[in-house]
Amino acid sequence: MSSETSNSNPPKDQKLSLTLKTAKGTKDWADKDMVIRQHIFETLTKIFKKHGAITIDTPVFELKEILQGKYGEDSKLIYDLKDQGGELCSLRYDLTVPFARFVAMNNLDKIKRYHIAKVYRRDQPAMTKGRMREFYQCDFDVAGSYDAMIPDSEVMSILVDGLTSLGINDFKIKLNHRKVLDGIFQIAGVKDEDIRKISSAVDKLDKSPWDEVKKEITVEKGQTEEVADIIGKYVKLNGSLADVISVLEKDEGILGNEKAMEGLADIKLLKDYVQAMEIDSFISFDLSLARGLDYYTGLIYEAVTAASAPPKDAQEQKEQALKKKESKKAKKNGANADDDASAYVGVGSIAAGGRYDNLVAMFSEATGKKSAPQIPCVGVSFGVERIFSIIKSRSNINKIASTSTQVYVMAFGGGADWNGLTGERLKILKKLWDNGIEAEHMYKGKVNPRKQFDAAEKSGAKVAVILGKEEYLQEGKLRIKKLGPEYADDDGELVTAEDFVTLVQSKLVEMKEANGGLDEITKLIQGI
Amino acid sequence: MSSETSNSNPPKDQKLSLTLKTAKGTKDWADKDMVIRQHIFETLTKIFKKHGAITIDTPVFELKEILQGKYGEDSKLIYDLKDQGGELCSLRYDLTVPFARFVAMNNLDKIKRYHIAKVYRRDQPAMTKGRMREFYQCDFDVAGSYDAMIPDSEVMSILVDGLTSLGINDFKIKLNHRKVLDGIFQIAGVKDEDIRKISSAVDKLDKSPWDEVKKEITVEKGQTEEVADIIGKYVKLNGSLADVISVLEKDEGILGNEKAMEGLADIKLLKDYVQAMEIDSFISFDLSLARGLDYYTGLIYEAVTAASAPPKDAQEQKEQALKKKESKKAKKNGANADDDASAYVGVGSIAAGGRYDNLVAMFSEATGKKSAPQIPCVGVSFGVERIFSIIKSRSNINKIASTSTQVYVMAFGGGADWNGLTGERLKILKKLWDNGIEAEHMYKGKVNPRKQFDAAEKSGAKVAVILGKEEYLQEGKLRIKKLGPEYADDDGELVTAEDFVTLVQSKLVEMKEANGGLDEITKLIQGI
Repeated sequence: MSSETSNSNPPKDQKLSLTLKTAKGTKDWADKDMVIRQHIFETLTKIFKKHGAITIDTPVFELKEILQGKYGEDSKLIYDLKDQGGELCSLRYDLTVPFARFVAMNNLDKIKRYHIAKVYRRDQPAMTKGRMREFYQCDFDVAGSYDAMIPDSEVMSILVDGLTSLGINDFKIKLNHRKVLDGIFQIAGVKDEDIRKISSAVDKLDKSPWDEVKKEITVEKGQTEEVADIIGKYVKLNGSLADVISVLEKDEGILGNEKAMEGLADIKLLKDYVQAMEIDSFISFDLSLARGLDYYTGLIYEAVTAASAPPKDAQEQKEQALKKKESKKAKKNGANADDDASAYVGVGSIAAGGRYDNLVAMFSEATGKKSAPQIPCVGVSFGVERIFSIIKSRSNINKIASTSTQVYVMAFGGGADWNGLTGERLKILKKLWDNGIEAEHMYKGKVNPRKQFDAAEKSGAKVAVILGKEEYLQEGKLRIKKLGPEYADDDGELVTAEDFVTLVQSKLVEMKEANGGLDEITKLIQGI
Repeated sequence: MSSETSNSNPPKDQKLSLTLKTAKGTKDWADKDMVIRQHIFETLTKIFKKHGAITIDTPVFELKEILQGKYGEDSKLIYDLKDQGGELCSLRYDLTVPFARFVAMNNLDKIKRYHIAKVYRRDQPAMTKGRMREFYQCDFDVAGSYDAMIPDSEVMSILVDGLTSLGINDFKIKLNHRKVLDGIFQIAGVKDEDIRKISSAVDKLDKSPWDEVKKEITVEKGQTEEVADIIGKYVKLNGSLADVISVLEKDEGILGNEKAMEGLADIKLLKDYVQAMEIDSFISFDLSLARGLDYYTGLIYEAVTAASAPPKDAQEQKEQALKKKESKKAKKNGANADDDASAYVGVGSIAAGGRYDNLVAMFSEATGKKSAPQIPCVGVSFGVERIFSIIKSRSNINKIASTSTQVYVMAFGGGADWNGLTGERLKILKKLWDNGIEAEHMYKGKVNPRKQFDAAEKSGAKVAVILGKEEYLQEGKLRIKKLGPEYADDDGELVTAEDFVTLVQSKLVEMKEANGGLDEITKLIQGI
């Protein structure tokens, strides 16, 4: 059931009429992987609901024209359905465009929604890196005209709550503002029509050193050395919101640029709000963050986890190592914004998002509406596949049960007249099920006790309900016994068949309490 | 956001460059519909987990060759992906074939799994009847070699638990056995190669009267009058398991047919097991049930809800009406198996399934394996769309909230220095969120109290946390107030900002208790 199996080719010497595999770039999910992924979905769903979001479900395929012209170069990765007569359709590429289509189509002026669903990209799959052709996205977005930074700061808090609730605490949110960034390009003298392509060069700073990015800006993208140096001065700035704000507030260039000042005003407001929610320590204001997608218009952000630092020139690396050492000495807690945020990369971003105020209007206007209202949006998308990898590697995977089974019903007996009490077992099981208790038995008539104990152990059951031949048939009693190596010497308790459910429930509660307050699955998954 | 909107065409006099709609036969789901559907999924998932099932997630598209030759005539309804180079793929048509592929591919000898996911059929959509091109299936299956009827009877109990837990109690499970049915055809003298086509004629008895079916068997399908009459004698039999068993046990034809006797032995065992679980009253042994799919090999069943009776000839209808009247006089409870099961149709089947012992081996053998083991399977599929329609029509739809919001945070004040306390509100909200409480506020700085109360009402919040200008800024106190018309005169309580979460929680508990034990959403959805 592993991803390796799912894509292995059959031996060449065997002539097969059919190859049992999943399509390229797709895989089956099952067992413990599924338990972990469901845990991620449930944890995030609970958080989204805490913030008053509804969920929507859009179709897996959309009209081709809805997706066209939304993803730039990446449009070649869109899967099309075969033309079997009728409309031309494509599998959705993300959840944001269908969301904007939904908002525009229904003339909504506001909505807070989350959507956890699969998206499709005909990319070269890289299984080992977790890049698939079919994968989940997990989005939360707020659409509507509101006062500046109020929904934005709430989205930040959802991002923090989402990751920490999943046991991921070693992350940084790199944050920037498109208006500040565009202002900087204007200050440096980049023409308006060149801004997006220079921005996409800057976006590579998380993977490449400045020297390379500078070369792209000058040699490839035709800007002067001087322009590049001014950009370089700004985009190297990063640190806590307060620190970077105070630098920018004294900067002549910024003070003289309307766009940058608008962005800075937003960031100052945001600082107050994230401080009020005490999540500011996770945030690093990083002027090198640009993000690829064209549709962002305001705040942009990306959460990255601590891992290997990106390649830098030798001198800079030494300086940073030194700075980090000092900074560690001075502080007790790791998660301070003025830690070097560039150390938090590696797996790549595990959540990202931003404000996109024009996408919905693009749809409304495309239908020919003259006065389509602007519906500003801000949102975050959790990178489920990457989060899954992190959580799985930290989890106590061997102890995670694939099922929820709590109770195993067994029958012990023998002799010529022994029939395994199948009907009686079903009667007992039905009572457990009716009381909401997860319970199984072996789908066999007569089985020896050893096999039943083995099956119980495999199922992950905590408690056994045993129908002993004499105890049950003569005395009408059931034996309730805790399972697990620590209860090997415990013979359990006899109880009348009428009262057994209460005893089972109390034993389950006892065992849960002995296990410490936290939900068992959460503990195992988070490797606590 | 209704299905009507989603497929409406734009007015013809408007020239549009883009039509905002979902693809034919698909629709967006949102708001209350989504709440009801999620409730269905969660209810069924909980039940599947009670029975020790894991869940698997297979890709939305499979290799075309995996689906080929599995659906007979209906294969023309399969959606293909466009050939963009590489493998040829198709969207899945159901969840059963991918499940069998999964079991065969991973060489599993047993698995209990549930799967709730979308499937795709290029059928003529009938929106009003709820027939869509993209729709959900909700399947539970047990694969593995076990003792007769033990998993089968458990699947029956899941079927009953699933429907009753969703508030649907007025249903019948029509049940038959492929071996009994095939035995009957043998007894009547149908040749083995004709059995499946005669079976599919008999399958129409839930929609057509016997006269028409007989015509199909004789005129269209070339059987003699005599053959048809023998078939007719048997397939008209239906009633409680016990009653029909006792008729068949005395029947010369059945007694002399090996296949029928094998099937009958299964049914007798099943009777004991469903009686032990006290679900026998839902079951009607109905020899006219044939089910369309070829791959069934044993028990087959179909749950139908009470509605208008199918067309019958006039005399028979009269007789039945009379019988029903008498039967009602004699009994107090509706759900007795010997009620006329044919009265339970209308919406069509709301859950169905059966035993298919050869499908997995078909896959294993197709890969060229010589000694592929047979992996017997039995399962049930809930008809989510039909169940949704029934539940929605019974629900107290107006009162269902789309969000889970429990608390609304407001700030009341005014004057030149009033700023709406946005940061303070966020501080309060963060405490609520951190305590797992669903809470919202207006995304505005300064708003008048009336608007905040309106927004709170719309959100479905139960409790307001109010930051009054004097109360909060001078005394450091918050006002906690229950919301809703019945609390209009309640001014709420003042509490220090440190203790407010406890007070909010206790007010929420009070209101929940006042509302009666049952979960509110369950009550509203089930229209209790």
